[in-house]
Amino acid sequence: MTNVAILSGTAESVEEIVRKLAEDARVASHVLGVSGPSARDEALQIGAAEIRRCTADILAANEKDMAFGREKGLSAAMLDRLLLTEERIEAMAVSLETVSALPDPLGRTIDERERPNGLQIARVSVPLGVIGIIYESRPNVTADAGALCLKSGNATILRGGSESLHSSAAIAACLQEGLRAAGLPATAVQTIPTRDRSAVGAMLRTSDLIDFIVPRGGRSLIERVMEESRIPVIAHLDGNCHIYLHAGADPEMAREIVLNAKMRRTGICGAAESLVVDRDVADSILPIVVDDLTKAGCEVRGDAEALAADARIVPAEEDDWDAEYLDKIISVRVVGNPQEAVEHVNRYGSHHTDAIVTEDATVAEHFLANVDSAIVLHNASTQFADGGEFGMGAEIGISTGKLHARGPVGAEQLTSYKYVVRGSGQCRP
Amino acid sequence: MTNVAILSGTAESVEEIVRKLAEDARVASHVLGVSGPSARDEALQIGAAEIRRCTADILAANEKDMAFGREKGLSAAMLDRLLLTEERIEAMAVSLETVSALPDPLGRTIDERERPNGLQIARVSVPLGVIGIIYESRPNVTADAGALCLKSGNATILRGGSESLHSSAAIAACLQEGLRAAGLPATAVQTIPTRDRSAVGAMLRTSDLIDFIVPRGGRSLIERVMEESRIPVIAHLDGNCHIYLHAGADPEMAREIVLNAKMRRTGICGAAESLVVDRDVADSILPIVVDDLTKAGCEVRGDAEALAADARIVPAEEDDWDAEYLDKIISVRVVGNPQEAVEHVNRYGSHHTDAIVTEDATVAEHFLANVDSAIVLHNASTQFADGGEFGMGAEIGISTGKLHARGPVGAEQLTSYKYVVRGSGQCRP
Repeated sequence: MTNVAILSGTAESVEEIVRKLAEDARVASHVLGVSGPSARDEALQIGAAEIRRCTADILAANEKDMAFGREKGLSAAMLDRLLLTEERIEAMAVSLETVSALPDPLGRTIDERERPNGLQIARVSVPLGVIGIIYESRPNVTADAGALCLKSGNATILRGGSESLHSSAAIAACLQEGLRAAGLPATAVQTIPTRDRSAVGAMLRTSDLIDFIVPRGGRSLIERVMEESRIPVIAHLDGNCHIYLHAGADPEMAREIVLNAKMRRTGICGAAESLVVDRDVADSILPIVVDDLTKAGCEVRGDAEALAADARIVPAEEDDWDAEYLDKIISVRVVGNPQEAVEHVNRYGSHHTDAIVTEDATVAEHFLANVDSAIVLHNASTQFADGGEFGMGAEIGISTGKLHARGPVGAEQLTSYKYVVRGSGQCRP
Repeated sequence: MTNVAILSGTAESVEEIVRKLAEDARVASHVLGVSGPSARDEALQIGAAEIRRCTADILAANEKDMAFGREKGLSAAMLDRLLLTEERIEAMAVSLETVSALPDPLGRTIDERERPNGLQIARVSVPLGVIGIIYESRPNVTADAGALCLKSGNATILRGGSESLHSSAAIAACLQEGLRAAGLPATAVQTIPTRDRSAVGAMLRTSDLIDFIVPRGGRSLIERVMEESRIPVIAHLDGNCHIYLHAGADPEMAREIVLNAKMRRTGICGAAESLVVDRDVADSILPIVVDDLTKAGCEVRGDAEALAADARIVPAEEDDWDAEYLDKIISVRVVGNPQEAVEHVNRYGSHHTDAIVTEDATVAEHFLANVDSAIVLHNASTQFADGGEFGMGAEIGISTGKLHARGPVGAEQLTSYKYVVRGSGQCRP
């Protein structure tokens, strides 16, 4: 493993450290951006092998971080996210190999046309340039995000939570070894070698060298980045996901989808947080759905009509409609018709992922067209909101914004395009 | 023509005026976003007819603005941009009809796939939502930008330069009449009814209701918007366009392309501002090219080697390499090989539009791949950098950024997408 130099942050200012990294990243991005897919894929494969070979070193680096984290008094949940094991290291290696096997997102002809004057105009995908990733103390993001950026020809500057400093550097060193072995610049993947928190602010100000910022983590991190950044940000905020049980829903399908969408994993952004139920079927469908949920340990909070339909439901407050619980809690709203359901979802939802359960195709199409969310589903669980489940191989997050990328952000979403025009001497009249 | 209420700005605060417009725009965007193409196209056609019918009213409104502008001491060039004539009004009507005839940018299936679990996943184009356009005192932008937003299902808030207040309102009123007649909300196209300059700042802060800002105008306007905006901005900065005359260029083609790219119109962003010439052909090609240019009244500024090749060339300063002259001036740099040319263009250019002239296909492909610009051309004039010339029908500007839209921004670039997932009861294992 390459030696990892961790700077004390006293010799150089943090601003200078970040600027130097960004300058090196910019130079690397020019080489990486015109590299062929075989070199980038080889770098990922060698990086994966290097991660396996350096397992002991990575575990040792992680133990330093864990000691720091324990000393700092991190919660058990945060320590668990920081912890690396042999299995987790193997999973990172597999993730690099999976990304390596994806189709090349660069050089795709998005569209092409010949103009009457004979000009051939092609729109071709190219990298974004230099991407800064800001995330929490989850070392595996170093591998996943670094791999997706490398695959898509972007240089990346990775800034994980300060507790994961040594682990992230050790993982990045493996990717750098892969880059070197494939004849690509190792500075295409870099981590920030200091725990100093001002490094995040310094990144967000380096708008002349960093093209694009992706924050990945909790709401407070993302809001800070969006507020401070002078660089365009692609972010996902809340996943307040809804399931609308239309009067025409198959009751058995409704039960299964609700239980899966809420309880399969409650902590992911695609977990359902709210049920919207048609008045006509509230009395018949709510008791069986609530029965499943309460047996699984889920609290159900509802409006007055929901309470009237099932006594196990407790009253919801106004705040419940906006809430992303990420926990065993769900809210229930009763509505009079599909349009009311759409309006509720558009008003209180977070434009992330929302589903309708119905056998009525017309009502389903109305919901799919009118709900203004990144992902809309008919008769399927909201837990499918995931780049891997969409066949994108891997994702760096799910964007709830509409600019550039919406929904899962995979390698393809980390690209831009250029117009390539081929002529034979044409001049404009 | 609908009566146009111009507020004095004293009764309500400007902040409140902008907020109210944005709230109405948000509501209108929900209706427009799910409207069919025929209603939007009809609104544009009726809007065009209304512009023709109201020519006298629009000219009267414009005369008020011209009087205001003359009183304010606007330059002759600015007054000319503000001036409307019968011909210019007819051109606006034609522009609306042209946009109406474009293919519908909404509801396009960008890609679709079936997953092994049977889920059908389609990515479908949708509008961005509410777009704020900030521009100078050019009334025709009201028609062009309003039409493109309407076509793409976006509600728009138009803020032209304060001198064009009455003209813009009169033109927008015609589009509103078209919307009403087509059964769509008239508030889908609105102008800001006050000259108060704080309205721009108020727009840029309304990030909860406006999705997207497009500034259109000179560098100072665009820089102010990019600096102040809390809303994502799509902007084009300079067009410092280059032509690289490779040693393998056909001399006659080189002459024609250089003269066209520089002199056809010097004030547009696709006008060439700099020549890069191979050392091997500097002595043979520069004299004929410089002859054409100087005869056409163009000043040529060059480096020492260029001066040595032709005595009519005057010395360039370092600032010349960055300059977007928009005038009858061009700079000339002599380089040793294609890689030096690429490096010069990437370092000094503005990533807008750059061309190579050569008969050598390998060198051409190297230039097209390695020059990091929105538009790269081989053997064609940079003056083709235009949405209309690209077959996009109309454009709102040319983006030099890589996020979301790069190059000409037409109706298609004013869209986002959503994932529409159709299942039959799938739950995630």
